[in-house]
Amino acid sequence: MAYRNSAKNKTRLLSPTAPSKRYMTIDQSPSESKTFQINNSEVHPLTNLSANKKLQDYEIQVKGRFDKIVPFLQKVSALQHEQDFVDCAQQLASQELGFQLPKHILDKAWVRPLDMRALFAWCVFQSHQHLSNQFFNSDPLNGSEDSNEAKAFQDFLLECGFHLLDVTPCADGRLAHSIAYALRIPFSSVRRRSHAGALFDIENTVNRWVKTEHKRYREGVPNFTNESTCYLKVVIYHFSSLDPSHQGCAAHGSNDEEAAKAGLQRLLDFQESVENSFCCGASVEILLIGLDTDTDSIRIHVPDTTKKIVLDQWVSVANIYEETKHLSIDQARLKIIDTVKRSAPGDIAPGMVSFISRLIENNISQLDYVSHLHNGPYPDSGHAERFIGVGIGFKEVHLRNLTYFSHLDTVEEGAPDLDVGIKIFKGLNVSRDLPIPVVIRFDYSGKVPGARDRALQDCKRVDNAITFRYRALVDDGLLHTCLTIRDRDKKGPAEVVGSSLKPTLQEAH
Amino acid sequence: MAYRNSAKNKTRLLSPTAPSKRYMTIDQSPSESKTFQINNSEVHPLTNLSANKKLQDYEIQVKGRFDKIVPFLQKVSALQHEQDFVDCAQQLASQELGFQLPKHILDKAWVRPLDMRALFAWCVFQSHQHLSNQFFNSDPLNGSEDSNEAKAFQDFLLECGFHLLDVTPCADGRLAHSIAYALRIPFSSVRRRSHAGALFDIENTVNRWVKTEHKRYREGVPNFTNESTCYLKVVIYHFSSLDPSHQGCAAHGSNDEEAAKAGLQRLLDFQESVENSFCCGASVEILLIGLDTDTDSIRIHVPDTTKKIVLDQWVSVANIYEETKHLSIDQARLKIIDTVKRSAPGDIAPGMVSFISRLIENNISQLDYVSHLHNGPYPDSGHAERFIGVGIGFKEVHLRNLTYFSHLDTVEEGAPDLDVGIKIFKGLNVSRDLPIPVVIRFDYSGKVPGARDRALQDCKRVDNAITFRYRALVDDGLLHTCLTIRDRDKKGPAEVVGSSLKPTLQEAH
Repeated sequence: MAYRNSAKNKTRLLSPTAPSKRYMTIDQSPSESKTFQINNSEVHPLTNLSANKKLQDYEIQVKGRFDKIVPFLQKVSALQHEQDFVDCAQQLASQELGFQLPKHILDKAWVRPLDMRALFAWCVFQSHQHLSNQFFNSDPLNGSEDSNEAKAFQDFLLECGFHLLDVTPCADGRLAHSIAYALRIPFSSVRRRSHAGALFDIENTVNRWVKTEHKRYREGVPNFTNESTCYLKVVIYHFSSLDPSHQGCAAHGSNDEEAAKAGLQRLLDFQESVENSFCCGASVEILLIGLDTDTDSIRIHVPDTTKKIVLDQWVSVANIYEETKHLSIDQARLKIIDTVKRSAPGDIAPGMVSFISRLIENNISQLDYVSHLHNGPYPDSGHAERFIGVGIGFKEVHLRNLTYFSHLDTVEEGAPDLDVGIKIFKGLNVSRDLPIPVVIRFDYSGKVPGARDRALQDCKRVDNAITFRYRALVDDGLLHTCLTIRDRDKKGPAEVVGSSLKPTLQEAH
Repeated sequence: MAYRNSAKNKTRLLSPTAPSKRYMTIDQSPSESKTFQINNSEVHPLTNLSANKKLQDYEIQVKGRFDKIVPFLQKVSALQHEQDFVDCAQQLASQELGFQLPKHILDKAWVRPLDMRALFAWCVFQSHQHLSNQFFNSDPLNGSEDSNEAKAFQDFLLECGFHLLDVTPCADGRLAHSIAYALRIPFSSVRRRSHAGALFDIENTVNRWVKTEHKRYREGVPNFTNESTCYLKVVIYHFSSLDPSHQGCAAHGSNDEEAAKAGLQRLLDFQESVENSFCCGASVEILLIGLDTDTDSIRIHVPDTTKKIVLDQWVSVANIYEETKHLSIDQARLKIIDTVKRSAPGDIAPGMVSFISRLIENNISQLDYVSHLHNGPYPDSGHAERFIGVGIGFKEVHLRNLTYFSHLDTVEEGAPDLDVGIKIFKGLNVSRDLPIPVVIRFDYSGKVPGARDRALQDCKRVDNAITFRYRALVDDGLLHTCLTIRDRDKKGPAEVVGSSLKPTLQEAH
């Protein structure tokens, strides 16, 4: 990994001779200038080591499946002119990857060079399908609605005064783990909508707000409207402490200030939309968070009770880590609470203090996670996504740099986000003569008559629109699609309903 | 107009020698077989003559503006090589149409044949703009929210037990007047969503239902939820009594039974979606109506209290007209109520009886309206729309055969509906070497920050998608677009924000 000179207000020390001890550049509130150092043999008193172990096992296991694909295919390539090639390849696939390869592609090896691009896409789709099935069947991150973790977090949220937590990270794959890893929130306790530059859709979010309020009025879920709790909308923008001018948010020209400013403006616009469109003091709470994609440390722009957020004023978890690592658990927690209170531009609600303090404590675990796993900051400082996820859904994706999200109903509306993803994958895959794997997903409500068929049609429509928009890539076998739908009411795994790797991957059922 | 043999269960008599007296084929409940005859010198006792006069003046005036365009352009064409052509043409335009022609097009007349296609599109767009401004500025149909008519109707709806009336007619231009003419309902009292084959979007309508309920819970508008009123969803399918196998609904292959069946199924699916997705006895009322596009007479499939609707059982207003035309007003009303009650498959709620009886009485006025205006059934039995309306909005369109609606957010999703419209206009206009005029509209809420800009972007996005999809037509000058947006909160007229007839029609402001 190349370390470059950092920008002003960022400092960095490298000690290549001491791999167990690394210094990282960190984000800082503008008034401070410190060096952040994690000693890998040390652990912060607030770090949850058992959670870190579980998360690490999961990440290594899932990403390992994707990382085996290229070496495996290199072996297959070498075998393609053998007499018993098809059998050998299938045996090797079963042994190394745990699934079979598509026979109709292997069968052609004698007549033309093996279509390695198609095999690569197949392996990515199978690996995604495996991860997806595992996620919905066995809840490896303990984040499903029925988990104790989710129930406890939901109670905590309500105690803090929030009945819905709605988070928009950037669509960038380096934020795909924001919820389950960086913030350590059970995935089912959050509405996650990723968008390029974290610029969420206001009308769509107002609709979500209406649905949430309606459910409270009608069903008292999660609580009745006579409890004065709020809808909390969070934006997570991102930046790179190690290479701020190259590895920041592409949508904002790698400019941290612009990323924060645009995120805050979107939050304020959403808040104003609710306030202007509905009577009786309707409003929402808002929160702006920045994430350093090199270390996962977050900075929180603490809002006061008047909902004021200041762009150049934040709590830095990297700083807090340093300031609290030698304290006892209780002392560290008190220090965090105190820091949060002092960081608000005015009075701050006790619930907001509790919520932010929890995020800080959770993020401290993540700082140790990253540092211990990689012996320093992330080695993949830039993009390294494995596939593009297009459509509505993907509740199963919670790993950094696994997926570039293109959250859309139509390619017509979502093209700018999708184009960014295609550009990223031209660099990642096409430059190596490998195809761009695109998983299309439409979640639907099985309770609604005809919804499954409509989700299927949506997949096909988006697949056609992608084929049309990126015709040259598709014609060259450099873009493959896998179509999936999922009944969100059943809470089971997704169903594969089509693929560009004909014949069909799996029978639609 | 060509009269053709009618299908079974339909009878027809023609008396070409007696133009003041015509016999019309009518829709009938299957057990009956009668001939429906309106004597043009007679008026049904329930017919509202003053309303008919007002509606007629409006229709003749507005359509007259569109019908002047071709004769006017023929005159302009003859002038194009005159010395003072530009001045002459502008003077003629002001006199005959009340607006100026685009100078940049006229100015080219000396160097190449005048672009009559562009001038035609310009005149259609200007005529639409005139109608739109007039509609929002002076409420010619007395249907705006502030009108006494709308207030009275809203009260009546609530008395009948309905807090929202949501109607989906077919997108066919021959149903564009369904609300204000055929059913005589103030336009602001209805949510109208036209779709090809009357096949409305279920998810979208469930969202509308949620918004409606939320407003009741939060604001008590139009009433609080402790009043047990219902959301009423109506589908209007259509058929042709004179030429049933050719002039019925194209989306259902001109098959009345299929059109009714598909409409009912969509209603039942919507009802089930609400019932399955929400607790506490959530449901909606549904109503299925058929409209004869030759005479505007409706048939109502009366539902009972168990919400049962029978496909081959209806009340025919044409029949009721005959049965009540010699009665007194009071007797006629009693007869209508009695017929409605007897037509339900089981018990029927008193509110539903009142509502349907009102529709029947209103529709009786429309039967006289059509018959007296045209001395028989409509002379334009088929399509004769003047432009295609694409997008979200068009509250100003309430005239038969004025507009083919393509109600869509994206061309990607709405292409099937839009393709039907383009096909219709290839027959209507392109076959005469005239272009297809497409008005794009996105309504927005001015209270929502950035909504105006997003509506503008939506217009441009859809314009680009149309240009892309119908490239050959656009390249030949056979498809022109006019981009308009409207702030639905302000209730003022729409704003023209762009056009394919560059330079821009009108400065965006």
